[in-house]
Amino acid sequence: MSDRLRPPSAESVAETAADLLTRVRDGSPVTHCITNSVVTWYTANVLLAIGAAPAMVDIVGEARLFAGVASGVLINLGTPLPEQRAASIEAADGAVSAGTPWVLDPVAIGVLPVRTALAADLLGRGPSVIRGNASEILALAGIGRGGRGVDATSSPDDAAEAAASLAMRTGGAVAVSGEVDLLTDGVHVVRIANGDPLLTRITGGGCALGAVMAAFLGAAPAGCPPLLAAAGATLAYTVAAEDAAAGSPGPGTFAVRLLDALSALAPEDVVRRARVRTGAIEGAAR
Amino acid sequence: MSDRLRPPSAESVAETAADLLTRVRDGSPVTHCITNSVVTWYTANVLLAIGAAPAMVDIVGEARLFAGVASGVLINLGTPLPEQRAASIEAADGAVSAGTPWVLDPVAIGVLPVRTALAADLLGRGPSVIRGNASEILALAGIGRGGRGVDATSSPDDAAEAAASLAMRTGGAVAVSGEVDLLTDGVHVVRIANGDPLLTRITGGGCALGAVMAAFLGAAPAGCPPLLAAAGATLAYTVAAEDAAAGSPGPGTFAVRLLDALSALAPEDVVRRARVRTGAIEGAAR
Amino acid sequence: MSDRLRPPSAESVAETAADLLTRVRDGSPVTHCITNSVVTWYTANVLLAIGAAPAMVDIVGEARLFAGVASGVLINLGTPLPEQRAASIEAADGAVSAGTPWVLDPVAIGVLPVRTALAADLLGRGPSVIRGNASEILALAGIGRGGRGVDATSSPDDAAEAAASLAMRTGGAVAVSGEVDLLTDGVHVVRIANGDPLLTRITGGGCALGAVMAAFLGAAPAGCPPLLAAAGATLAYTVAAEDAAAGSPGPGTFAVRLLDALSALAPEDVVRRARVRTGAIEGAAR
Repeated sequence: MSDRLRPPSAESVAETAADLLTRVRDGSPVTHCITNSVVTWYTANVLLAIGAAPAMVDIVGEARLFAGVASGVLINLGTPLPEQRAASIEAADGAVSAGTPWVLDPVAIGVLPVRTALAADLLGRGPSVIRGNASEILALAGIGRGGRGVDATSSPDDAAEAAASLAMRTGGAVAVSGEVDLLTDGVHVVRIANGDPLLTRITGGGCALGAVMAAFLGAAPAGCPPLLAAAGATLAYTVAAEDAAAGSPGPGTFAVRLLDALSALAPEDVVRRARVRTGAIEGAAR
Repeated sequence: MSDRLRPPSAESVAETAADLLTRVRDGSPVTHCITNSVVTWYTANVLLAIGAAPAMVDIVGEARLFAGVASGVLINLGTPLPEQRAASIEAADGAVSAGTPWVLDPVAIGVLPVRTALAADLLGRGPSVIRGNASEILALAGIGRGGRGVDATSSPDDAAEAAASLAMRTGGAVAVSGEVDLLTDGVHVVRIANGDPLLTRITGGGCALGAVMAAFLGAAPAGCPPLLAAAGATLAYTVAAEDAAAGSPGPGTFAVRLLDALSALAPEDVVRRARVRTGAIEGAAR
Repeated sequence: MSDRLRPPSAESVAETAADLLTRVRDGSPVTHCITNSVVTWYTANVLLAIGAAPAMVDIVGEARLFAGVASGVLINLGTPLPEQRAASIEAADGAVSAGTPWVLDPVAIGVLPVRTALAADLLGRGPSVIRGNASEILALAGIGRGGRGVDATSSPDDAAEAAASLAMRTGGAVAVSGEVDLLTDGVHVVRIANGDPLLTRITGGGCALGAVMAAFLGAAPAGCPPLLAAAGATLAYTVAAEDAAAGSPGPGTFAVRLLDALSALAPEDVVRRARVRTGAIEGAAR
């Protein structure tokens, strides 16, 4: 617990982002994705652009095995066919058994019952990082507590308490996306103001970030807290998004340039341009 | 029936296109898509670019529910896995129960038996709009009448009678794509000459238009005939395609610029550049 | 057997590439793909760009029928859902019955058991062309001989013997991708040094080449050996990749420009810029 008592500084977040970006490029971590059919192509390209090795392995009989040998795993619930639901459970079990870090992205849970039940099953397996928008985080935190469904809430700060409670339950980190991204381990908070509204005008802008988090977790040295790896991924990704947005005439060009920008991203630029604030969750036992 | 007696003018088609484009951007209609695995990414990006909110919900246990709360629904039969076939029936039933307008795109029916049977089931549920090429519309019109299969016909005009007969059966509109798009409600005809051949050189050029039709239907005010909403979507989309094609060195750049152009499209340009003719189906009871 | 005794010259490979490129554009061969969910969109766009007619038909009850009427078939094992595994067997049987040439791309076999078993089933049906990286070809050659799994081998030359043995078993050709692509029919070898490293920085760079091979096989005149058709596809594709890479700031732009370049590719440029060497498999009975 003592590690969790020291709050990360804004500088340490930025330096971790730069360090893990370099480690991803040097080590090309195999990043195992079970993700939705809308974003598989873009997600794989984002991972390749940043230097990771994507592997979409989403069938029963292979997912458990592969999660055990991969560096990091992403489970995204966007379009969960029955086969992929079973493979997701396999992958989570394989990741937990092998100590592989894994990310849960509970897309559109709350209002949609099949994926909501699956998210509950996966939550109980303790994802290293949970990534979602405010509504999804609120819905996930409500599971097993009476299920209040999806709130029409858009600000990450409105979901800060729910995020902290989820993080305390899993022992991992929770990332809430928004104009200013909010990440927490239940005690500390990291806020990242980098990014561009065009990220919300392309499909998979958030889903691909979940995959980058899995790659950064997979490249992180032993002892690197999931909160720092997830924040590092968010920072690197959103700084690249700023590069991509500059001069883009619209979302099509932006999506293409984001791949170029991730590929060209300089670690020192991530540090220099970081807009990070850190603090403590209000009311958290410190 | 009296509404159907007044033929829409070319001006009203263009003005409806501009009005619905503005409504889509203002209201961001949730557009529920069950579409093929080839075009999910591009379709979602097209919807985001034009201002709608895409949601790919294609599993049993969620599709009926979601079709009831969405603004519009697209069911495209391009790669219908068993789960998606069942979800398509669910979604159509959910749309019909809730009064949600829905679009059927019967990709490649006629020669392929599984999707042809599915198309027959869906046709009986009365889609608001059917969208396809001439061969698909001919094949769909032949279902239940002896099934004459796919004709090697490429002109929308060759499918005008079949389209009109389908529209009379469903009470909705039918859109036949081609060099000049033809749309009919069984009595009136709208022909739209905008567009560019590059639309046929990218995958999903037609499939994404079906999604835009669902978004326009979802944004339309009460009483707007499906024929006008579908024609408005076609006009806005094909004018944007002209912008995207201008100066594009090839289909890759065109696909990217189409997203930019949809995002930048000005309603007044749609009106100004519309190449629309309207008339009556020959032999239709007027 | 006498045909196999004459070694193809580098000139004949280049001229075949140019000839088949022209035939693809003139005849627009229907290319039936059962491929992975990550690359369907890009693969279809690559086929359209080069002039072929893609058709993704990957369900039971349609795949056998369609493989019988298509010009060429691709079966890629990247994300094989149960339905697609069954459809792959159907498609291979349909292709064999009808004499349709077909390509097998055994993505990531060796370490992953479900697709490895499927690859063994498909191998027994005699694909016209097998396409993979060195590890996949080594793994496939090991099937039924004790299964030595995946070697961490990256050079096509290390897999030359395995490729030749597979080709002798199937009577078709085997293509091993790498910095210099190696193709063999078990006796002769074609090496192609065109291409660009950016092809490995986008997802589906290799998968889409498998589809182009199916299109070239489908457009080839009777008697054209699979080795020449596959080499022709590789050459056309990698020359276009050089055009696309020139001046590309990163992988996103490269992926887009590759579609433009395939569309604009001049047959005479393929001949002029070909970097092809031909020879014999060492130790092959000549």
